[in-house]
Amino acid sequence: MNESCYGCSTCASADKPLEGFIAKLPMETSHHRVESQETKCGFGLQGVCCRLCANGPCRITPESPRGICGATADVMVTRNLLRAVAAGSGCYIHVVENTALNLKNTALEKGKLKGLGTLERLCKTFGVSGKDDHEKALNVANAVLEDLYKPEYVKMDLVEKMAYPPRFKVWKELGILPGGAKSEVFKGVVKCSTNLNSDPVNMLLDCLRLGISTGIYGLTLTNLLNDVLLGEPEIRMAPVGLRVIDPDYINIMITGHQHTMFVHLQERLIAPDVVAKAKAVGAKGFKLVGCTCVGQDLQLRGAHYTEIFDGHAGNNYTSEAILATGAIDAVLSEFNCTLPGIETVCDTLSIKQICIDDVAKKANAELKQFVFAERGKHSEEIIDAIIASYKERRPKVKLNLLPEHGYENNLTGVSEVSLKKFLGGNWKPLVDLIVSGDIKGVAGVVGCSSLVAGGHDVLTVALVKELIARDIIVLTAGCSSGGIENCGLMVPEAAELAGPKLKAVCKKLGIPPVLNFGPCLAIGRLEIVATELAETIGIDIPQLPLVLSAAQWLEEQALADGCFGLALGLPLHLGLPPFITGSKVATQVLTEDMKSLTGGQVIINADAKESADLLEKIIQEKRRALKI
Amino acid sequence: MNESCYGCSTCASADKPLEGFIAKLPMETSHHRVESQETKCGFGLQGVCCRLCANGPCRITPESPRGICGATADVMVTRNLLRAVAAGSGCYIHVVENTALNLKNTALEKGKLKGLGTLERLCKTFGVSGKDDHEKALNVANAVLEDLYKPEYVKMDLVEKMAYPPRFKVWKELGILPGGAKSEVFKGVVKCSTNLNSDPVNMLLDCLRLGISTGIYGLTLTNLLNDVLLGEPEIRMAPVGLRVIDPDYINIMITGHQHTMFVHLQERLIAPDVVAKAKAVGAKGFKLVGCTCVGQDLQLRGAHYTEIFDGHAGNNYTSEAILATGAIDAVLSEFNCTLPGIETVCDTLSIKQICIDDVAKKANAELKQFVFAERGKHSEEIIDAIIASYKERRPKVKLNLLPEHGYENNLTGVSEVSLKKFLGGNWKPLVDLIVSGDIKGVAGVVGCSSLVAGGHDVLTVALVKELIARDIIVLTAGCSSGGIENCGLMVPEAAELAGPKLKAVCKKLGIPPVLNFGPCLAIGRLEIVATELAETIGIDIPQLPLVLSAAQWLEEQALADGCFGLALGLPLHLGLPPFITGSKVATQVLTEDMKSLTGGQVIINADAKESADLLEKIIQEKRRALKI
Repeated sequence: MNESCYGCSTCASADKPLEGFIAKLPMETSHHRVESQETKCGFGLQGVCCRLCANGPCRITPESPRGICGATADVMVTRNLLRAVAAGSGCYIHVVENTALNLKNTALEKGKLKGLGTLERLCKTFGVSGKDDHEKALNVANAVLEDLYKPEYVKMDLVEKMAYPPRFKVWKELGILPGGAKSEVFKGVVKCSTNLNSDPVNMLLDCLRLGISTGIYGLTLTNLLNDVLLGEPEIRMAPVGLRVIDPDYINIMITGHQHTMFVHLQERLIAPDVVAKAKAVGAKGFKLVGCTCVGQDLQLRGAHYTEIFDGHAGNNYTSEAILATGAIDAVLSEFNCTLPGIETVCDTLSIKQICIDDVAKKANAELKQFVFAERGKHSEEIIDAIIASYKERRPKVKLNLLPEHGYENNLTGVSEVSLKKFLGGNWKPLVDLIVSGDIKGVAGVVGCSSLVAGGHDVLTVALVKELIARDIIVLTAGCSSGGIENCGLMVPEAAELAGPKLKAVCKKLGIPPVLNFGPCLAIGRLEIVATELAETIGIDIPQLPLVLSAAQWLEEQALADGCFGLALGLPLHLGLPPFITGSKVATQVLTEDMKSLTGGQVIINADAKESADLLEKIIQEKRRALKI
Repeated sequence: MNESCYGCSTCASADKPLEGFIAKLPMETSHHRVESQETKCGFGLQGVCCRLCANGPCRITPESPRGICGATADVMVTRNLLRAVAAGSGCYIHVVENTALNLKNTALEKGKLKGLGTLERLCKTFGVSGKDDHEKALNVANAVLEDLYKPEYVKMDLVEKMAYPPRFKVWKELGILPGGAKSEVFKGVVKCSTNLNSDPVNMLLDCLRLGISTGIYGLTLTNLLNDVLLGEPEIRMAPVGLRVIDPDYINIMITGHQHTMFVHLQERLIAPDVVAKAKAVGAKGFKLVGCTCVGQDLQLRGAHYTEIFDGHAGNNYTSEAILATGAIDAVLSEFNCTLPGIETVCDTLSIKQICIDDVAKKANAELKQFVFAERGKHSEEIIDAIIASYKERRPKVKLNLLPEHGYENNLTGVSEVSLKKFLGGNWKPLVDLIVSGDIKGVAGVVGCSSLVAGGHDVLTVALVKELIARDIIVLTAGCSSGGIENCGLMVPEAAELAGPKLKAVCKKLGIPPVLNFGPCLAIGRLEIVATELAETIGIDIPQLPLVLSAAQWLEEQALADGCFGLALGLPLHLGLPPFITGSKVATQVLTEDMKSLTGGQVIINADAKESADLLEKIIQEKRRALKI
């Protein structure tokens, strides 16, 4: 670097090479802003601030225990939480809707379907058929879309078909079976508007209902529809980190959650005529550089995209560093987690920003709204715009690569199907290892990456290390995966960090102690694994020695995911509380009463060792109850 | 009162007798809490606090001009505003959906339709028909429901049919025609979630789009569907204020916005067998006491409900006082604005709380979710529960009536139809009065009642007085109406407060200078009046000498209403800013740039005289442009 660094006060990262790289950057990033935003509002942290109406903002204090309208801390907190969960659910339902729509349109156009095994599985589960694969895909997509658009007062059909029967029974008894998923989001938002609902428990139950629709549609069906269209995950080794960026190519960083929007463009980018265009401006061709969950999804399905996909460079809070290498020529984004902060980095480095879904439109970005019928035209326009960007920027931008960053041989492509196949076609080997105690339990470490709770991925990575050291195998999904893999926990050699029993299992199987299921959407795949394990043993999900942690949950989506975990009856660890501590009722219901409602519970702890102790204790209790 | 007052520090009210009554109450009300919530958060007021994610809350200061993610003040403010507008729109769309559903179910059951004139009008506008009135009503209701459930990417059909063509053209050119109204709300909420949209102007345009769907469906069609089912408004005189409460009856205070949910119960409450039940416990029968907008709607249609409806007692922030009279035996609520604070008042005075829509479930209330097919059973259960409450509470609760409060002869029943009829069947007389300058202009003073901007209805009432003194006729809708009428501005004698020219007009016609269109929903009726006036003159709406003021806007719904006003191209006055002043872009777009987009503009001023001066100036400018 010729320029001096912007400022050295960046937050810590579990990824030390990345931390050093960011600290030396000449531009401001989110990691720098942690310090300037260090002073947090106590009212906001506790959830006891309300700004729903013009009488406010109102805040709860010992001297003012109610807002002007009469809302208590319990009402404020649960209203704020319900709104966040509804919004988070909405994000996932938006993704599954577009995914189903793209599958539907592909089926109508007799386009390529790459995952026929999953298609058959969905047909069987849904009870639909068709005269050929395209008609089957159309019927599957329509079944999903029809459910999403049901009114709130009409229950969705696929919930019972997708859910584990003992869970469905619990949900029915609690009255939390969801109506149409979009209407549930709509109703959730209305309910927490001013002077509407003021019953905290009623609103918390709604969070569970939204968790179910989020989980079954957003987190489970999105993956399966993606499998049909994009190809099923296959276990393989892949490189991760900034090392994947090859400056000889025209590089496109992708961010978002809607992989099916890239189908046409991906194909075009490796077509001879497009490669020739790239060569004409001095590049070897095009590469997609993975970032955020859509990058995880490409990594997961990497077996089908070896030519175009370079690898996953990093998670949401690695995005600025990826751009800062100078070797990225365009950002193509379609959803979160696309930080507003990348805008200034892109401007500084003349990186073209194109958004293909206006829900995630960035300032200064070009909007090419994805419309299936226009994808051909749009792909060409996007390609031309990116070539122009490459041509204009490369001569003037200095590269700042970090080719040693990351790891070369990471196990990827893990899904509920590929893992079972790896184990020999059934879950018995895994169940046997759990029963024998060689694997003490299973922890799903999922969700986002944040810059708090110690810094970038700090708690997540430390917790994972603590868990594997206790012979607890870790399954990951989300931006957390991106952090964990960039810290070297997904290479087979990471077995050395596991406890003696898990280490032996890993070495025997040649796997790392942390298995990466890919994007946060794949939390639904973990749920399928849990369901199939429970089914194999003949128990309900909450009886499994299985815990969840969204240690560094960041977004509203993570809260909706978490509610799915609670509806499944799982213990859910969070590093930081979801702005609920100001409410006794919310805290009591989520951390205690939930056990008797669904079997789930929220555990809040920001210390990795303490958190691992708590989770191990729960696993031990579940083992004892199963007499193993 | 035998007991000492709870505390004398209540906020001011434009309604002085009410202010005195509340100040002497032995229990805490919202009016008392204004003082304890006096210290407001500057970040919240300016809209520059973000708590969407776990990295936060982040706040914008000169030293920290971006949140950790990179969001600027402009992004935070517009994200917060879009979320509020989406939620507010959702509230109205919920109301129109239930209204259409109740009309549909009534039509299917061949139930009573009281407004066949409106039915014909809707059939003509929609281009639908039917072999009889029930089939026509069914087709009308279905047309609305089908639009509401369209995806966001499919435009609604009725917008073009309902909108004034010059406005439709502007909206089309701006690209703000709404897709399915529920999906628009859904998308609005998703768009402002973490790390999604960061383009302030894109989000502000979405606010306008939501304003259009809110206005046409929530604010216009709700009234017209209500007219079909409940009967059309007829101009008449009616009493308002606490005086309407007759303690000899079993009194039910109603709150909400969904009048059609009361149809069956209303009929039953005056049936001989139910009256006999009331008499058996010592009451003369049942009465509904109006509060909030559903009370305004009953008042508006009072000609059809003379037996059961006592009159409108007051607006949202009068609700605690109405209950505190002791003569209310139950609260029946179905939506906002049902303050959480009424719960403690009800508990203190043993008042039964029943909620009939769980979006507005109160703590400690019984939920009898309205389901059309079960309304018969539910009505009986509600009647029995309220009789039991009356029987139990009346012997032990002391009455604290205020029979002098309010006014006896208020002009009510004003609608776009009844007013035109009153004028002789066309708008020419009104247009002539405007052209001649006898009426300088028209001001719609609409929306909520709040406890800020001077206190309860203080700015609203003062502004109305200023406007009428300037010969500007005032049309009202919403809780503002409730405050204005309780302050005596809707009796014919109020003509004395008007300027000389308007006074003469009022005296000649025997009307007050303020005409009450009823609930906030009726803002849509004002829009019809504006459209028909513009049509009569042959101009577009923004050219009219017509201004809007939501002087004491309170809720998110008011912001969605306001966006409709801006889409219509109208100047919109607000007493307090909608948490936007922290953003230069939002402030600039809403107060200035909007003029060139739609013709509208936001004017923020908390002083009644200054505000009236500003609005009068705009009216004068519009008059000059029209050369009148």
